[in-house]
This record gives sequence, structure tokens and C-alpha cells, in this order.
Amino acid sequence: MFFIVLYCLLSWRRFGVKRSSYDIIVILPPQKNHMRKQLFLTLVLILPAFMHISRAQNQDSLTIRKMYTEALTNPVAYKNLDYLCTKIGGRLCGSAKAEEAVQYVMNLLEGMKLDSVYLQPMMVKHWERGDKETAKLVSAKKGSRELHVCALGTSIGTGDAGIKAEVVEVHNFIDLKTINRSRIEGKIVFFNRAADESRINTFEAYGGAVNQRAQGAMQAARYGALAVIVRSATTAHDNFPHTGVQHYADTVKAIPAMCVSTNDADLLSSWLKDDPSLKLSIKMNCRDLPDVQGSNVIGEIRGNEHPEEVIVFGGHIDSWDLGQGAHDDGAGLVQSIDVLRLYKALGIKPKHTIRAVAFMDEEIAQEGAAAYADAAKKKGEKHLAAIEADRGGDTPWGFSIDAPDQQVNKIKSWKAFFAPYNLWFLEKGGSGVDIRDMKSQGTPLIGLVTDPQRYFDYHHSANDTFANINLRELELGAAAMAELVYLIDTYGL
Amino acid sequence: MFFIVLYCLLSWRRFGVKRSSYDIIVILPPQKNHMRKQLFLTLVLILPAFMHISRAQNQDSLTIRKMYTEALTNPVAYKNLDYLCTKIGGRLCGSAKAEEAVQYVMNLLEGMKLDSVYLQPMMVKHWERGDKETAKLVSAKKGSRELHVCALGTSIGTGDAGIKAEVVEVHNFIDLKTINRSRIEGKIVFFNRAADESRINTFEAYGGAVNQRAQGAMQAARYGALAVIVRSATTAHDNFPHTGVQHYADTVKAIPAMCVSTNDADLLSSWLKDDPSLKLSIKMNCRDLPDVQGSNVIGEIRGNEHPEEVIVFGGHIDSWDLGQGAHDDGAGLVQSIDVLRLYKALGIKPKHTIRAVAFMDEEIAQEGAAAYADAAKKKGEKHLAAIEADRGGDTPWGFSIDAPDQQVNKIKSWKAFFAPYNLWFLEKGGSGVDIRDMKSQGTPLIGLVTDPQRYFDYHHSANDTFANINLRELELGAAAMAELVYLIDTYGL
Repeated sequence: MFFIVLYCLLSWRRFGVKRSSYDIIVILPPQKNHMRKQLFLTLVLILPAFMHISRAQNQDSLTIRKMYTEALTNPVAYKNLDYLCTKIGGRLCGSAKAEEAVQYVMNLLEGMKLDSVYLQPMMVKHWERGDKETAKLVSAKKGSRELHVCALGTSIGTGDAGIKAEVVEVHNFIDLKTINRSRIEGKIVFFNRAADESRINTFEAYGGAVNQRAQGAMQAARYGALAVIVRSATTAHDNFPHTGVQHYADTVKAIPAMCVSTNDADLLSSWLKDDPSLKLSIKMNCRDLPDVQGSNVIGEIRGNEHPEEVIVFGGHIDSWDLGQGAHDDGAGLVQSIDVLRLYKALGIKPKHTIRAVAFMDEEIAQEGAAAYADAAKKKGEKHLAAIEADRGGDTPWGFSIDAPDQQVNKIKSWKAFFAPYNLWFLEKGGSGVDIRDMKSQGTPLIGLVTDPQRYFDYHHSANDTFANINLRELELGAAAMAELVYLIDTYGL
Repeated sequence: MFFIVLYCLLSWRRFGVKRSSYDIIVILPPQKNHMRKQLFLTLVLILPAFMHISRAQNQDSLTIRKMYTEALTNPVAYKNLDYLCTKIGGRLCGSAKAEEAVQYVMNLLEGMKLDSVYLQPMMVKHWERGDKETAKLVSAKKGSRELHVCALGTSIGTGDAGIKAEVVEVHNFIDLKTINRSRIEGKIVFFNRAADESRINTFEAYGGAVNQRAQGAMQAARYGALAVIVRSATTAHDNFPHTGVQHYADTVKAIPAMCVSTNDADLLSSWLKDDPSLKLSIKMNCRDLPDVQGSNVIGEIRGNEHPEEVIVFGGHIDSWDLGQGAHDDGAGLVQSIDVLRLYKALGIKPKHTIRAVAFMDEEIAQEGAAAYADAAKKKGEKHLAAIEADRGGDTPWGFSIDAPDQQVNKIKSWKAFFAPYNLWFLEKGGSGVDIRDMKSQGTPLIGLVTDPQRYFDYHHSANDTFANINLRELELGAAAMAELVYLIDTYGL
């Protein structure tokens, strides 16, 4: 250690982790811009304390390295996700599949010799897609064509007779206002604003398009539309309809809301140009059933110094029904469970209680998130941090931190611990909706940030399958979560 | 501009690029740790000059932003790669397919209205795989089993009779020395050292295993082995044999060299434990044919200030024959071509000559690399930089720079230009073998660094197909290359 400090001093190099070594990490204090003499004096004075700290930090680096090795060489998270996706599959909140997933995760956690495993029940919506939806274009000029469509989550059905009507294409809610109401009344409104592919961050592209899906029906109904068909909120050009939740307003009539693949949205738009009076025939068999009981599944290792203080982390257990819920959010769920497994496998005893939560009902109404936050408040639990993994299982980049600057900076000060694992993104920003409700309790919120380029290729579609998960990327994400939990547990936040 | 400076001054914030904005980039000078007053005085004094510089930098930021927008919204590189992979396919150096690829790239470049497009011929090896290789385990105890195998590149064949012999498993060249020679003589040596999955960087995992493939036959022949079968150099557990070049030594007898999928390497090892006297029957029909002429394909836009100074960038046009050469290295090739296209599409006139090269024969003997470097030397061309993209078409991370510190630091000083595109990796390190020969001419070498997690899942196997290319990731890589070329052209290196 001493020789490294001396070497840095003499060669007047920046302090930090040597980038070229991925496997042996020496943590040194952050760069100072004092003069060489001042630095020398400072170092001579603080060296004994500093060497003690560095030894501890070095030990932490080695522990973290072991987490990554265990995750990469014993890919349990990957195997768990395989089961969840290929044996259970899509698990829409309120469905029998969601309940099956709860039982599976419960069994998994119970087999891990944790200090506590329990269910946290809540009532959730039970919306059912029913038989496969259909949409058919009929044009005197162009012929007829089936489109790749699906109902949006919470939509009402069309009834057995379906709906057949002309289509009016719009790109935003302002269009609805400016178009003559007579052109909308009795029609199917087609929202066709594309996600902006030029965005570097696909979440921004999605964010710029998704209000059509979430509020399109509600907005179009105000102007007398019979139904809406919405372009899928994705940067991909594909034949998958990408579903997602939509909301009705109490004051506006509920009308059926359907989404269409981006390729077919382009086709529909093109046909409309040639034949504005073409008709679209749609049928959706979805319906609401009475609310049912759902459950969060929780597993924890009690802290051996501050058991009353909690670091919570999770992903959601429900998913859309079209695919297997692999990236959204089976990945985040198995990664969260794996944080506990890595602690057990390596025999690490946390100071604070560390807790994995499989949140129910992220996709529809976040009742699981609310139930967790309510329970935490009632119990008066102090949370050191709440972490969510819900951006897909591709390569982890780092963490987005929704907390005061002081806590953001504390996490940034761990940069050298993260660098060997290519976790370079440590920025202030949003986290995830399952932990959002913890904010009012003063909890710092953190989201695992992963490579976003492919995520919306899968998102909410039949393409979100285990086959599109990469073992190493998934496991690196699990280890990244475990590393963050370890650093918060060790150094506080 | 002024108000931004004032704002930073007053709010005592760090200078830099605002992270949350991906689309509007304002470049400001690096952080200073002077006192506020000093900073204020300094700024008042330098402001006029500074504002001029910043305006230019701002313009550069906007130009770069346009490159990314063009690449993401008009995915020509992706379409070119589609053709190269699915219409032409694997293009082993010396083969008719390689020649077809040369013609395709030539036509592509000729259609781009460049200042110059030409072929650079050289003689290359012509090795042919022949009919599909086979390997069959025969064990009195365990039964028999076909393995997933292929010949290693440049290997001799087994002859029609094939080779049937016992197998001796080793893990490195030291094992060969320590095992009694009688246990190797007349046997097939099985090199079974796995790539180290615990490495974060898969290139390190590959690097730790690949000498078995490259020199295994040469080493085992010294001890009287009849042939070698080598575990595929990949972190993946799959049924694909991953081929690659191997070398014979003039002083040692050439013996057949085959590789086996990782799953079947595990199987073979497990069978050997149960039945050390099992036999392996192999047949390979590969052979050397007389050398043929190959070609680099070169396209360039002449510089309008320093046409005699060149920035060269490229990928290799040859590939292994088992897959489609999508990631290795169709991706790097189409990305390099796209740098020229982006310049043309946006009407940017480079100061220096910018040149894309499709290098022939990267996989076997790098004759294309040698021909390029020889020609550059003969012509006395000055190269500002040589850039290679040959690490797969997944998400770009940044650049690895093989140059003196001064040039490395210059590229690092452009960090704020790269940050909006998540190009965070700017480090000293290796580049690529196609530009290696330019080093002796004093040229700074740079490699495009991409996410390495999936690369060896594809590498040199039948799995290296266009289906495994992501449009956005590939196009971001093309824009990243164009951005680097633009910055070098604008600011020098």
C-alpha cells in the first residue's frame, strides 16, 4: 500500500483505480489539486489512518470481486429466470399465472435459509385479455388486411359484434382539439406518433410516445370516438403489438383501446392516404373481473448491527401476458433475489437488514408498491435505501439516484469500486415506480441502469422472452445490485 | 453563452455538459478548483476568446448530433450488413465469397460519389474446409456419440481414412511436458482449458484460452500426438464449435487440428473420466490450395486543407466460413463505410483525407493489413490516425488508444463531446491487428470498444449471423466512429 501511495506521489499521477486491471483493485482517495508539497505533508500526517482505511477498502474490493465471480460462474439468477419464463411464463397481475409465480418465488426464498420470508397481501385488479384480438382493414381500393394488434391493459372489450368504423389518424392530443369534431365522432381514432428513434436514450423515445397509449382512449372519447388504435410505443420496426396499461377517466365514457405493431401502423397510415374512407373492423374480448388478492413476496437477512434499518431492493413479479416477462421484469426480480443468495453463498453478514421484494402489480396499478410503503410506514421502519431493477436484463451501466445531492455524491464517491465492473453511470435521476411511494418517507431511491438500446424491442410484447436474455449481462446486473447493497450497508448513505 | 457562464459562476456548479440533456450540448472548459474570485477575474479576461471557441465547439456538437440522428433514422449501415451477411454470407479469405464481398463493397463505395475508390491487391492463402468435419466418440462403457466439431483454420485434413485414437486431456502446454511422452504418442491430445467466465472483460477470458487453439497442434506434435481437439475459446456454453486460425511451425510435423463446442468438451472430459481408453474417430477434409489474389477495398474523401494527411478507419471484409461474419467483422466494415456516408449525407467537407478500408485476410495472415501499411510507407503518406472496428457490433463504449500519452490525453479532452452518446471508455490500450502495422510509421492507433459480453457467443461460429445484430447498437457504433474521425479532423491529434 505504502509503495503505491509513494509511487503516486512521486510520479504525480492521478489517484484512482488503475483501469487496465480488472481483477486487482486498489482503492485510493479521490484526486486533489493541491501542490505537491502540501500533498506530501498531508499524506505524512494522515498516512497511518489512511492505511487502515485503505486496508478495509481493499478488503471490500475483494469481497465485491467475489460477488461478481460467484454470479458469473454460478449463474443461479439465470436459471431462476429460465424457470420463471419458460415454466410459468407471462403472469398478468390477478391471474393464476401470477399466483403460480408467487408460489415459485416463495419456495425459492424459503429454500435459501434466510432469516425471514413472508407474503404481503393486497387486493389487485383482475383484467383478462380473453380470446385473441383481431383487427381487419377493409378498403374498396386496397383490399383487406389483418393487422397485428392487441388490447391495451384495462381496456373494455368491443362486445361480440366488434366495432367497424372509419379511421381518423392523429399524432397527439392537440390534433384532437383542432380537427373538426364531426371527423372524430363515430370513428376509430388512430394515434400514430412514432417514438423518436434519434434519441440516444430509448427511454426518452418511449416517454415521448407513451401518452397516446396511456390516455389516448380517454382523450379521444371526449370527442365522440368509438375506439382507439394506438401505434406501439417502441423504437423497433416489427410486427409485435407492444401492450401496456391505459387509463379511463371517471367523467368520460370508456371506449375500447387497442394497440398495433409499428409496421402495421405504417401500413395503416399509408392505406389511409390512398383511401381515407377505408374501414377498420376490430374485436377485443377483454374484460374486468372482480378484484382478487395478490401478494408481494419478501425475503430478508437481518442486520447484525442495525436490524431495525433496512436496505430494500426488488423487481416486479407480475408481467404482461403476451411474452414471458423476461426483461420486464423477471430479470430485475431474479437479480434482486440473487443479492440475498450472493450474501449467503459468500457468508457475508450485513450490518443492516437487507430485503428483497417481489412487487406485485407494477404493470397495472402498483398496489404492491403501495402495500409495501404502507406497511413500512405503519411499522415505522427506517430505510437506508430502496433500489429497483426494472429496465431490462441487459448490461448494467450503473445507477440512477433520486435523493438529495449529499447522497448522490456519496454514491459517486464509490466510483472506484464500480469502475472495474464498467459501472460508469452514477447520476441523479428517476428510479422505478415500485419504490416511488417510499420517497415520502425520506428514503433515497435508486434504479439499476442497464443498456437501454434493446429494451423496447422486447417491452410489453410477445418478444419479451428468456431467449432474449444474455447470461453474463443478467448475472453482471445481479452482482451490480449486490455491490451497491454491500457498499450502502458498509459505508451508509 | 454568456448567461450559461454567469449561471455556472453564480451557482458555483461544476462546469461541463449537463447530463440530463442528450440533445443540446454546450461544451464548457473543464472544472477548475480556484476560488470564486479568481475564476471571475479569469473569466472576465478570457471571455471574448472563450466565447469564440465555445461557439465553434457548439457548432461541432451540433454537427456530431446530426451524425447520430442520420445514423439512427436512416440505418444504411444495417441494411448494408444485411446484404453482406444474408446475400453473401461467410467469406473466408481466398474464397469466391470473399471475392463476391469485394465486388459488393466496391460497388457500394462507387455509388457514394467519393473522391476515390480503388482496390489494393495482395496474394492470400486459400484454405478450404471441404465437406463437413466429423468426430465420434466410441466407448465400450458409455456407447458412442457424435460431437459438434470443426477444423481450425489452416489445419491439414485427416485423409479419407480419418484418425481413430485414444484421447489424452490436457489443460496447457506445461501438461504436455509433465505427462509421460508415451501417454501422448499416437494419441489425440484434447486441450480443455476453459475461458475464465469470471473475467468481466470477455476478451481477457478469450485471451487466457486461445493459445491452445493457435499453437495446440504445433505443441502437441512435438510429443508425438496424431491430432488435437481443442475446446472452443468462448465463455458461452453452447453446441457451436468456434473456429479460428492455428499455426504450424516449420520444424514440427503438421497434425490435424480440430475444435469442439464447449458443451461437447465437457462431455468428452466427463466420458474420459469414466473410460480413459475410449476412442475418438475424427475426419476433416480441409486442405490448402494455391495462393490467390485478394484485395483491400478503399474509398476516400479528399481533405480540402491537408489532402496529403490521412485519417484511416476500417474493418475486415473476410470472415470465417461457418456463420455470416456479422459481428466479426461485417459490423466494423459497414460502420467504417458509413463514416464516409455520414460525411456525404451531411455535406461535411473534411480538412484531411478520410479513408475507409475493407481489409482482406484479417483472420488468417493479415496480408491486407501488410499491403496497406506497405503502400502507405511507399507513398510516404502521413496518417493522423488509424482506427479499427473489430470487436463486434454491440453498443459502443468508446475507444482504446495505442499512442503516446499526449495523444491519449487529447482524445480524453473530448470527453464532453462523447458523453451525450454514452461513450465513456477512453483509455490507453490495444487497437486491432489490421492497423497494427501502421504503428512503426508513428501512427496513433485506435480501436472502437463495444460491449464485450455477447461477442464470444458469436465469435468464429455458425452463430455469428445478422439475426444477432441490433440495429440501434450497430448504427450507434457507426456514428461513434464518424464522431471520432470528425474530432480528429477538426482538432488534430
